Amino acid sequence: MPHIHVHLLPALLESHQLRDGVVVVADILRATTTIIHALSAGAEAVIPCLTVDEARAAARELPHESRILGGERKGERIDGFDLGNSPEDYTSAVVAGRRVIFTTTNGTKALLECREARKVFIGGFVNLTAVVERLRQIGADAHVLCAGTDGQLTAEDILFAGAVASQLVTGSPSGWNYGNVQGQMAADYYVARSRDPQVFRDTFFASLGARNLLELGMTADIERCLQRDLFPFVPQWNAATGDIRLNP
Amino acid sequence: MPHIHVHLLPALLESHQLRDGVVVVADILRATTTIIHALSAGAEAVIPCLTVDEARAAARELPHESRILGGERKGERIDGFDLGNSPEDYTSAVVAGRRVIFTTTNGTKALLECREARKVFIGGFVNLTAVVERLRQIGADAHVLCAGTDGQLTAEDILFAGAVASQLVTGSPSGWNYGNVQGQMAADYYVARSRDPQVFRDTFFASLGARNLLELGMTADIERCLQRDLFPFVPQWNAATGDIRLNP
Repeated sequence: MPHIHVHLLPALLESHQLRDGVVVVADILRATTTIIHALSAGAEAVIPCLTVDEARAAARELPHESRILGGERKGERIDGFDLGNSPEDYTSAVVAGRRVIFTTTNGTKALLECREARKVFIGGFVNLTAVVERLRQIGADAHVLCAGTDGQLTAEDILFAGAVASQLVTGSPSGWNYGNVQGQMAADYYVARSRDPQVFRDTFFASLGARNLLELGMTADIERCLQRDLFPFVPQWNAATGDIRLNP
Repeated sequence: MPHIHVHLLPALLESHQLRDGVVVVADILRATTTIIHALSAGAEAVIPCLTVDEARAAARELPHESRILGGERKGERIDGFDLGNSPEDYTSAVVAGRRVIFTTTNGTKALLECREARKVFIGGFVNLTAVVERLRQIGADAHVLCAGTDGQLTAEDILFAGAVASQLVTGSPSGWNYGNVQGQMAADYYVARSRDPQVFRDTFFASLGARNLLELGMTADIERCLQRDLFPFVPQWNAATGDIRLNP
């Protein structure tokens, strides 16, 4: 019987835990949601970079017309970058056929914690059902890693992790179980907070991640990131090449 | 309106967060439960020490008949100590009128994280209602700090934190609110896991802390630590003197 583990923050992870494992990375507001948008809009690949300098260096190695430079620091577009971290800015017109070089504050760091994993998926509410289905198909122990916000737990990532965990455990005919107390806790939290859609919305909007965006006037991004199942795709990161693709 | 904050592990605490605050420390299996037993049985004070050497040195400064040396490493009584960390060993016959010099793996460390707090209380299921009442009387923002087990989250501490948080928020006429996502999550977890007494018991027994004790054959200690409201006392730690007393 496979187990679903949740890690509420990268700092709560012990380094060996993900080795050869199956992991879903979640930075719901907004990095992973934006990555899913970019690839669903036809970007060839997303290339996550830890630092702004690293992203600029990667961009210089590609012809201008074949790449897009995107990401944020403190929530806002980085000087000289083509796009910020708003999912809806990653339209087909802008990104189709291009490589997106991408750096964000929390999401990229979380991804790099998964270097030793066997499969690393990109999750969001916008592809929730597809993520759950993919984990069911694989049928092996799996992990959801919440990126958090500036080293702190944030509700939107935990709600997503809880949605994945509770759907696997209560909805899988083959039988899944919780792998750790964080998984069970996230699931109970999600179930309690999503019974009433207004409570779910209020919890999402009161999160640390959402409050940061509200201060920047980015309400539309929050609305977008809480939508469910806009896309049937589960992007996957290839640690060897550094690329995230729909079909790696 | 006061807020109840939960910290699922000492490592999730930022050092300034408890400054001048009101904190309940919880190491349900077993340190805080045992401290409550010792003081309820008439011990004059409990003196928490971080290391075994420190505890031995503190013991040498007191006449033999006026102190008890207690605590554990890896769950078992320390060589040359009078008592281990089993709550029911701290009977009136043994501890009444004496100072208990006490060192445990996780509980003492958690307590020392509270050095800068204004009031530090000792909590357990065995004094749950008294803890909630005390926090209501004070009526100011409060924290529950879970000790965890060897740096990892453990269900029994989180269940206790969730019990305190949910009872304050749903049961206080004056109105309390959750101060952080960990508080809301612990409360949802407690509520979901305590609806059915058998589920509560199973969750408690499946915890990391309980599994360690089961391996040592200490089932009776687990049974004792999940009992509710055996005592109406809320011990308090005085960081200046280093003593825990019923009436500091």
